[in-house]
Amino acid sequence: MNLDFYKAFNIHIDLAVEAHEIIRGEAGREIPGVIVDREKYENATVTIVKIVEENAEQLMGKPRGNYITIEAPALRDNNREAQREVAEVLAEKLKSLFNLPENANILLVGLGNWNATPDSLGPKVINQSMVTRHLYKYAPEELQGGLRSVSALAPGVLGITGIETAEIIKGVVEKIEPELIIVVDSLAAGSVERIASTIQIADTGISPGSGIGNRRSGINQETMGVPVIAIGIPTVVNAAVIAQVTVEHFLEKLQNTPVLNQIYKNLRPDFTHQVINDVLQPFAGNLTVTPKEIDALILSTSKIVAGGISMALHPAIDLEEYNMYLN
Amino acid sequence: MNLDFYKAFNIHIDLAVEAHEIIRGEAGREIPGVIVDREKYENATVTIVKIVEENAEQLMGKPRGNYITIEAPALRDNNREAQREVAEVLAEKLKSLFNLPENANILLVGLGNWNATPDSLGPKVINQSMVTRHLYKYAPEELQGGLRSVSALAPGVLGITGIETAEIIKGVVEKIEPELIIVVDSLAAGSVERIASTIQIADTGISPGSGIGNRRSGINQETMGVPVIAIGIPTVVNAAVIAQVTVEHFLEKLQNTPVLNQIYKNLRPDFTHQVINDVLQPFAGNLTVTPKEIDALILSTSKIVAGGISMALHPAIDLEEYNMYLN
Amino acid sequence: MNLDFYKAFNIHIDLAVEAHEIIRGEAGREIPGVIVDREKYENATVTIVKIVEENAEQLMGKPRGNYITIEAPALRDNNREAQREVAEVLAEKLKSLFNLPENANILLVGLGNWNATPDSLGPKVINQSMVTRHLYKYAPEELQGGLRSVSALAPGVLGITGIETAEIIKGVVEKIEPELIIVVDSLAAGSVERIASTIQIADTGISPGSGIGNRRSGINQETMGVPVIAIGIPTVVNAAVIAQVTVEHFLEKLQNTPVLNQIYKNLRPDFTHQVINDVLQPFAGNLTVTPKEIDALILSTSKIVAGGISMALHPAIDLEEYNMYLN
Amino acid sequence: MNLDFYKAFNIHIDLAVEAHEIIRGEAGREIPGVIVDREKYENATVTIVKIVEENAEQLMGKPRGNYITIEAPALRDNNREAQREVAEVLAEKLKSLFNLPENANILLVGLGNWNATPDSLGPKVINQSMVTRHLYKYAPEELQGGLRSVSALAPGVLGITGIETAEIIKGVVEKIEPELIIVVDSLAAGSVERIASTIQIADTGISPGSGIGNRRSGINQETMGVPVIAIGIPTVVNAAVIAQVTVEHFLEKLQNTPVLNQIYKNLRPDFTHQVINDVLQPFAGNLTVTPKEIDALILSTSKIVAGGISMALHPAIDLEEYNMYLN
Repeated sequence: MNLDFYKAFNIHIDLAVEAHEIIRGEAGREIPGVIVDREKYENATVTIVKIVEENAEQLMGKPRGNYITIEAPALRDNNREAQREVAEVLAEKLKSLFNLPENANILLVGLGNWNATPDSLGPKVINQSMVTRHLYKYAPEELQGGLRSVSALAPGVLGITGIETAEIIKGVVEKIEPELIIVVDSLAAGSVERIASTIQIADTGISPGSGIGNRRSGINQETMGVPVIAIGIPTVVNAAVIAQVTVEHFLEKLQNTPVLNQIYKNLRPDFTHQVINDVLQPFAGNLTVTPKEIDALILSTSKIVAGGISMALHPAIDLEEYNMYLN
Repeated sequence: MNLDFYKAFNIHIDLAVEAHEIIRGEAGREIPGVIVDREKYENATVTIVKIVEENAEQLMGKPRGNYITIEAPALRDNNREAQREVAEVLAEKLKSLFNLPENANILLVGLGNWNATPDSLGPKVINQSMVTRHLYKYAPEELQGGLRSVSALAPGVLGITGIETAEIIKGVVEKIEPELIIVVDSLAAGSVERIASTIQIADTGISPGSGIGNRRSGINQETMGVPVIAIGIPTVVNAAVIAQVTVEHFLEKLQNTPVLNQIYKNLRPDFTHQVINDVLQPFAGNLTVTPKEIDALILSTSKIVAGGISMALHPAIDLEEYNMYLN
Repeated sequence: MNLDFYKAFNIHIDLAVEAHEIIRGEAGREIPGVIVDREKYENATVTIVKIVEENAEQLMGKPRGNYITIEAPALRDNNREAQREVAEVLAEKLKSLFNLPENANILLVGLGNWNATPDSLGPKVINQSMVTRHLYKYAPEELQGGLRSVSALAPGVLGITGIETAEIIKGVVEKIEPELIIVVDSLAAGSVERIASTIQIADTGISPGSGIGNRRSGINQETMGVPVIAIGIPTVVNAAVIAQVTVEHFLEKLQNTPVLNQIYKNLRPDFTHQVINDVLQPFAGNLTVTPKEIDALILSTSKIVAGGISMALHPAIDLEEYNMYLN
Repeated sequence: MNLDFYKAFNIHIDLAVEAHEIIRGEAGREIPGVIVDREKYENATVTIVKIVEENAEQLMGKPRGNYITIEAPALRDNNREAQREVAEVLAEKLKSLFNLPENANILLVGLGNWNATPDSLGPKVINQSMVTRHLYKYAPEELQGGLRSVSALAPGVLGITGIETAEIIKGVVEKIEPELIIVVDSLAAGSVERIASTIQIADTGISPGSGIGNRRSGINQETMGVPVIAIGIPTVVNAAVIAQVTVEHFLEKLQNTPVLNQIYKNLRPDFTHQVINDVLQPFAGNLTVTPKEIDALILSTSKIVAGGISMALHPAIDLEEYNMYLN
């Protein structure tokens, strides 16, 4: 897998850990300006990719900042202990990315299309979140202890509203002036085993072209004027990626056939791209691969994300509290 | 029925024709500064209430402007001929309230709560509308003939977002700068026979306190900076209104009993209000009356409203076209 | 309030505690063949009405059996402690009504119309229930410990399917042969303060004419061939009931006016019925009263019911487990 | 593409035209006992595959009967003229498969999972169908002219109900005794260009293992006791198919490299299967490929299918009527 392929099919690499792996693979060495850390938990591995220098930014195709990835294959098995631990790790890592007073205003944004199951993670998280801004505004101070002021928006997608999502969010941000925006989105991954088992938290917000629906504009500190943290979970793999990986893996397994290896080395990459394009006509890069049980996976992961966010934002809430609260 | 009752229960009179009738009834004469016209159609009666003077504004409790009411009891019977005629009358009357170039931008807003059937009319109309702004922006000019640039928003309600609906809309309006806003909302009526059989079109937008959910802020030219046309359909009657009307009707039918008439005349209005309050505890003015088949009525009227709006905004669309287009 | 009124408007009295109160009120004495017990909990009162004799059956308009009512006004305030206690009381009372082996098959049925918010309690409970029959069937025995075999059905309503609900259920019952059916339904109450704060559990199943949608046929041991337990929560009051109660309360408060009292005594009941009929035209007994926040109330009570059922059926599940499990 | 592949991945070939092509390809000649006819329309091509002999049944992996395929790529472009024509062709072909009196009872069944967009075609068609059985039963005879008695069921999927779909349907069928069952389902195709552009009508019903969700039991005359017509539209391609086709197409394009051709010929098929299995871990044959706009495609095709069925069943209904009727 290499960058040419992603460019040819106009596919955005949503996960920083995947971008890092591809680029390091192509370079054959560590990427200067990128720092990678790992932490192990009972049911999860956390990888922190820090892009700290400008030229690393360009190499990685991602802005400078922190990209925290929680990998927990047990999530896919509906393992309750793993779900609980991942929600807690998510809360802890999320808190590590902001520093807000108790009375701060936070805007949650659920990106994506509620009519298309794999793209509905963001709106589903919004449905399950503890929205308090309207209570907070009118409640006596003593009742506000332990709950921050949270508002929530599921702006829909361009095909439904006719309006760029970023325009809707920016308009609302200018009215309610939050101190922080947390954006939740469905992502595309490079391999199917990441679907519903990986969570990425990035303090760089949303880049143009990312997400299943290829959100067209960025949603980040630059465009919004306040810090934006993006939480994303892969729910699909682009079908072109599957096709490309299959061909590569096919050839790899034939590597010990020297003639073939020779032929492969002489192949221009666009030969394979043309093959893939033919197979995916008339949709080309616009096809996604999902497991059949994607609806159940979206439901269970949306609950983990909503629970993690609630614990991170509302100091008075633990997971039991959140589960009872949520109706 | 009198104004004291509405004040006591903090109930907004959404329909201008009802406000007009009550106030004229109390005054015992025509209201200066209000002009009323009527037109008859095969399956519908149209009443146009024009509030033209400032003191009429105060008497009526509604801003100066045009309030067009289409009454069509046949709508409730799922009468297809009536549905078709009402959609066409709606389109015609709507067009009479704006004067826009072919390339104007229009923002449709569906107010209300999609989780509460009687309050879901606005979002349902949005679901069935022809949104074109995103196509228009990129389409060659020759393809734009006959379709105006329309965007659409269902902003949700305060309890879901934590944000005043008017703030969300105003934020979006400042970004996309439409020339006209059309707002669709579920209304409360003074009698159950108006449910799903009356449509009000007003060029004064939405007043604070109107609608089922008592939208708290106004959505009108003053707050939005552009003309706002509101289309509303009663889907509920306040339960306090039903209780009050029942007592009044009960006493009316006993009128020829002179003692009773005497007693009734001596009753302070708040005696009845207290009775009603007792019965409606702990919800008081916060209870609504709907027919059991409200879901079917909302679906059929939302289609008529969406069809009427499409015909009014897109010169190239007739009702058959709209029905085929709509998926 | 008396039985004549309910007959005149063809309104079913869904709650046994209400039927009992009305009939005892009319009789002016205890009803032979009916035994009433009360238990107090921290946040709830439980009333058990046992109809034990045949002539009590006719007087009460309900078949012999146990009607357990949990009343918990705190439910309406989204009080988490009350929600937890009520779920546990519900589980305990439900268990008192059946005696099943560990490997019994249970069919849950959620009655009602998912498109009409107040009638959607049954389908919402089904959505949140732990369905295990398909796992149970293929799982090794040691994995089945603590989970009973549960299947679930939301058959819809006559207007959607064209088929009597009881026919659909009976057809499925004959195929899967459950040992017990638990039916969940939205009920109508006689006063608004019962909405979303009262739960009735009856081992007599569903009587014809009960529920918001006036389910036409009975769903009980006689029609289904296996025991049927019905769990119901009032989500509406019939608008005719509100009107009637208002008139009665109005006259009560005027009772110390002797002439009026005299007149009232001479009024035939159908005088008031005619008044109410006039006010509710053209819907008559077909109008329901609900609080505006009914969507939130349905969501929170459906979670309590689903949690209580899960605890009662699956010995291995406590409320925390259920909350984590539920995605 | 060959049968070994489908067996290895346990993938059902839903479309008879595709099965026919593969098997004829492998055999290198026409298949005895299979008759194929073609008809051309303005916007559609109709292929009729008749399996008439027992040994053809085994070769094709499909029971004897008629498989009518309507192919209309214009459907995907939201072409209104094509939509209208396809709905009419569907109605005509559907009518060619049954011969029923005016007062026949027909049961529509929408298979699939309403929570998973690509699998929601069946339930969406049910939502948009004209259900009349409950009206028919009570309506005077003169009002029944031109409308047949139609009931409708969306039984859900095993993971939601815990009950085999065929058991639910069979139970209902035994109660309401329809003369004909029409089942609508989402299918899997062998190439992405068939998604939302091909409709298959088969008088053999549903075979075990077909459909996106691999419905486990058959729904056909044998299991139901009455004729079953299945209408299916491909909404996905299995990801393993995409991977296999990509490898095959890759090798085809390298065919003129003789060494490679040699190597390929010597490859056992399970070499490629192993490659594909590796890439699709941990989901293997359980991954589907869909276009990103699948929600819009499902909506538009469900309307065409519901319109076609209504025209076929109700002699009094044409497409305009249906569009106005449908709310």
